Amino acid sequence: MDTQLQDLKDRLATIKDLGSAVALMSWDQDIHMPAGAAQGRAQQMSTLSRLHHDHFTDPAIGRLLEDLEPWAADQPYDSDGAALVRKMRRDYDREIKVPSEFVARFTKARSIANSVWPTAKQENDFAKFAPHLEEIFGMTAEYAGYVGYTDHIYDALLDGYEPDMKAAQVEAIFIPLREETVKLVQAVRESGQAVDVSCLSGDFDHDTQLALATKMVQAFGYDMNRGRVDEVAHPYCTNFGRDDVRITTTVDPTFFNSNFFSMLHECGHALYEQGSAPALEHTTLAGGVSLGIHESQSRLWENLVGRSRSFWAWAYPQVQASFHHLRGVPSETFYRAINVIEPSLIRIEADEVTYNLHIMLRFEIEKAILEGKVKIADLPQEWDQRMENYLGVVPSTVAQGVLQDVHWSLGLIGYFPTYSLGNIVSVQLYEAAKAAHPRLEDEFAQGQFGAVLGWMRENIHVHGSKFTPNELLKRATGSEIDSAPYVAYLKRKVADIYGV
Amino acid sequence: MDTQLQDLKDRLATIKDLGSAVALMSWDQDIHMPAGAAQGRAQQMSTLSRLHHDHFTDPAIGRLLEDLEPWAADQPYDSDGAALVRKMRRDYDREIKVPSEFVARFTKARSIANSVWPTAKQENDFAKFAPHLEEIFGMTAEYAGYVGYTDHIYDALLDGYEPDMKAAQVEAIFIPLREETVKLVQAVRESGQAVDVSCLSGDFDHDTQLALATKMVQAFGYDMNRGRVDEVAHPYCTNFGRDDVRITTTVDPTFFNSNFFSMLHECGHALYEQGSAPALEHTTLAGGVSLGIHESQSRLWENLVGRSRSFWAWAYPQVQASFHHLRGVPSETFYRAINVIEPSLIRIEADEVTYNLHIMLRFEIEKAILEGKVKIADLPQEWDQRMENYLGVVPSTVAQGVLQDVHWSLGLIGYFPTYSLGNIVSVQLYEAAKAAHPRLEDEFAQGQFGAVLGWMRENIHVHGSKFTPNELLKRATGSEIDSAPYVAYLKRKVADIYGV
Repeated sequence: MDTQLQDLKDRLATIKDLGSAVALMSWDQDIHMPAGAAQGRAQQMSTLSRLHHDHFTDPAIGRLLEDLEPWAADQPYDSDGAALVRKMRRDYDREIKVPSEFVARFTKARSIANSVWPTAKQENDFAKFAPHLEEIFGMTAEYAGYVGYTDHIYDALLDGYEPDMKAAQVEAIFIPLREETVKLVQAVRESGQAVDVSCLSGDFDHDTQLALATKMVQAFGYDMNRGRVDEVAHPYCTNFGRDDVRITTTVDPTFFNSNFFSMLHECGHALYEQGSAPALEHTTLAGGVSLGIHESQSRLWENLVGRSRSFWAWAYPQVQASFHHLRGVPSETFYRAINVIEPSLIRIEADEVTYNLHIMLRFEIEKAILEGKVKIADLPQEWDQRMENYLGVVPSTVAQGVLQDVHWSLGLIGYFPTYSLGNIVSVQLYEAAKAAHPRLEDEFAQGQFGAVLGWMRENIHVHGSKFTPNELLKRATGSEIDSAPYVAYLKRKVADIYGV
Repeated sequence: MDTQLQDLKDRLATIKDLGSAVALMSWDQDIHMPAGAAQGRAQQMSTLSRLHHDHFTDPAIGRLLEDLEPWAADQPYDSDGAALVRKMRRDYDREIKVPSEFVARFTKARSIANSVWPTAKQENDFAKFAPHLEEIFGMTAEYAGYVGYTDHIYDALLDGYEPDMKAAQVEAIFIPLREETVKLVQAVRESGQAVDVSCLSGDFDHDTQLALATKMVQAFGYDMNRGRVDEVAHPYCTNFGRDDVRITTTVDPTFFNSNFFSMLHECGHALYEQGSAPALEHTTLAGGVSLGIHESQSRLWENLVGRSRSFWAWAYPQVQASFHHLRGVPSETFYRAINVIEPSLIRIEADEVTYNLHIMLRFEIEKAILEGKVKIADLPQEWDQRMENYLGVVPSTVAQGVLQDVHWSLGLIGYFPTYSLGNIVSVQLYEAAKAAHPRLEDEFAQGQFGAVLGWMRENIHVHGSKFTPNELLKRATGSEIDSAPYVAYLKRKVADIYGV
C-alpha cells in the first residue's frame, strides 16, 4: 500500500499547492492588485480553480481510494493514514459531482462580483451589485443541485463548511438561542444601567493601533516569522500552508474596537492554522476542519480571552501607554465599554449577545432566497425589516445594511451560521481548557496565554482535519455541540456588566 | 481549423495563467512572504512550474501544431494565427526536451537559492551561498544537456533568453565593443576633466524620492491603474498579463541615482508589457519577445531619454523642488554628475560606458564555469581579478563583488549578455524613432514623451512575441543588430561631458 499511499499524497500535495496559489491570488487582489487587472485576475483564478478541481476529481484518485480503503480500515481510526483516506473519500465523493466547467465559471463570477462589491458598498449603490448577487445565488443553487441534498437545499451548502451539519439542526439550535438572546437584550434594557462607551471613540493613531494589536497577537502566540498583517476592507485570515498564515485587519483611526478586536479574532484563526501538525502539512488534512471549529478559535481569543477581566488587567496599562487620552479613564469604565451590549447595525462590531441575531437574519435571508421566497431586488427592504424586528435598529444606507459583508460577493452562502456555531463551541472548549488548567485566567493577568494555547494546540489545532467537527468536539470535551454553556456564559457577562 | 486553433488557444491560456501564478508567488516571496514560509513556497512554485511544463509539453499540443501548420503556412506571415503556430512550434520543440521532474527540481533549487542569497549578501558570506550556486550551475548544465546545442553549451542557455542568438555572435559583438569602450575610458581619464558628483549624495528623503520617480514614470506613460511600485533589494519588473505590470525598485535615502534611474529603467520594461496588443493577451504571443529587446526599452527610457539634456531641462526644476539642497546646484553640474563616466563596482549603478565591461566579465565567468575552467569556490577571486583587469577597481566585500546580482540565485545563467545587446539595440530603435519624429527631444523638454512612446508602441510593443528579435529589429529599423550607432552615441556622450 506504500506506493498507492505515496501516490495519493503526491496528488494531494499538488491539489494543496494549487489551492495555495488561488488563495495567494485572492489575497493579492484584496491588498495589492491594481484595479485594471480585475478581469485578468478573475481569469487566472478561474483557470487555477478549474485545475484544482480537475486534479481533485481525477478518476485515478477514486481508484487509489478503492485500493487504500481496505488497508485504511485496518489502521487505527485516529492514525493519519486512516484519516487521510476517510476524509479524501468524503471530499472526493462531494467534488466529483460538480462539473469542471461550472467550477471555472463560478470562480470567475465570484472574482468579478468581489471586485464590484467594494465600489458598490463605497458608493452605497445596491443596484450596482444586485446583478452579481443574482448570478451568485443562481450559481449557488446550481451548485447545490450538483452536490445534492435530502431535506433542504441549504444542507448542500452548509455541509461544505460544516461537515455533517444540517439546516434543521441549525434551526433547532437557533430557536432557543434566539429566545434566550431576546430575554437578555430585554434584561439589559430594563436594567436601566447605561454603559459609557465614549472612551472608545477619539483619536486613535493608525500606526499605534496596529503596533499595539500586533504586540497582543504575538503575546497570544501568533508567529510573525510564519505570518504577517495587512489592511483590507473586511478582515480575514488566509494561509498558504502552516508556515504562511496571514492576518488581514482594518483600522479606524477614530474608534478603538475595529482594529483591536479584529486582530484578536483573526489571530484565533491564525493560531489554529499555525498549530496544525507538521506531519499533516501538504495534505488535505492540514489546517482547520470546519468554519465552526475555526470560529470557535477566533471567538475564544477575541471574546473569552480578549474581553475578560483578567486579560484587561494586563492589557489596559499598555493601551493607556499607547493612547494617552485613556490615562484618565478608569479600567472599569474601559472594561464595561468594550463589553457594552447594545443592538447595532454592523455584525463584526456587534456585542457578544446581539451578534447571533445578525447571523440568524442572514441565515433566514439566504434560505428564503434559495427557496424562491425573496427576490434579490427586495433584499434591502428584507434586510431592514428583519433588523427592525430582531434588533430594533434600521440602517440608513445599504453600505451599513445588506452590502456590509464581503461573504456573498465571494459566493460564501451557507457560511454565516457557522459563526454562531463557533460562538457556542468556543465556550465548550474554553471551559474544558479551564477545567484542565483552573488558574489560566490568573495567567492572563500576567500576559501569559500558554495554558489556553497549549490546550487548544493539543486538543484541536494539531489534529488539522483528521476528525469531523463533531468527533473533534467529543474527543476534546466529551460532549456534542451544546448551547447551554454559551448561554450561561452570556448570562454571567450580562450580570457582570449590567448587574442583572 | 477553427476548432483546433481554439483548442490551442485554450491550452495556451491555461499555460499563461499558470505562469502568472508562479510569477505572483515569486513577487510575493520578494516583497511580502514571511521568512518561515520559504520551504513551503519553494514547494508550491515547484509544483506549479511542473504543471506549467506538463501543460506546455502535452502531446496534444504537438498534434494540434501538426494539424495547424499547413493552415498557418497559408496565412500572412505577420498574422496573429501564423505567428502563434510558428512561435509555439519553436517553444514546444524546446520544452519537450526537458523532463518534467527536472523542472520541478530546478524550480525548487532556485527558490531556495533565491531565499538564501539576500542573507548571504547581507552577511557578506560567500560560503553560505556557494553550495546553492554550485547546485544552480550544475543543474543549468544539466538543462543545457536536455535542450541541446551544436557549438557551445552556452548557446543552449542564451537561446532561451534571446532566440537565435549564439555565444559566438555575442563574442563577435563584444570584442570590438570592448576595444572601443577601453579607448573611451582612456579618453575620459586623459581628458583631465573631473566631474563633481557630490550633488547626488546627501539627504534624499525616502518618500519624496519615490513620489518624484513615480511622477516621472507616469509622465513617460506608465499606467498605474494597470501597475504598481514596490521596494525590493534588486529591482525588476514583473507582470501577470498586460493589465498587471508591476515595477519594483530600491531607495537609498543618501543617494539620488538608485531609485530614480532604477524606476526609469523598470518603467521601460513595464511600458513594453503594458503596450502588448490586447488581441495577443492570454496567449504565448503576449508580452516582450526577448530579454535583449526588453532591455532596449528599459535602457532607452533610463539613458537615451533619462540622461538626455532635453529630459533634464524639464525634470531638473522638479528635482530641485523636491530636494531643496539642490537649489543652489546649477543644472549643468547636475547633468554632468548623472552622466559621470567612472569605473565602479556595482553593475546597476555603472555609467553607460563602463556598464558593458561588467557584462563581459559575467559572460566570461559563466562560460568558464560551464566549460569547467573555473570552480565555484574560486569565484570571488576570479571576479576580483577581472574587475581589476577591466575596470581597475576591486571590491572589498563579496556583497559588492560576486554576490551583488540576484540573477544566479534565480538560475538566470546566459542572461547577462542580453543587457549589452539591449544597450546596442536601444540606440538603433531610438534613432529610428527620431528619424520619424525629428523634434521628439524638443518635446522631452516640455515633459512630452508621447512621440517616442508612440513609435515604440507601434513598432515594438504591440507585436508582443510575434516576431523573432532579429525580425522585429529589421521591421522596425531596416537593420540587423549593429553596435556602430551605439558606439557613436557613447562617443557623443563622452564628447559632451568630457570635451574629448
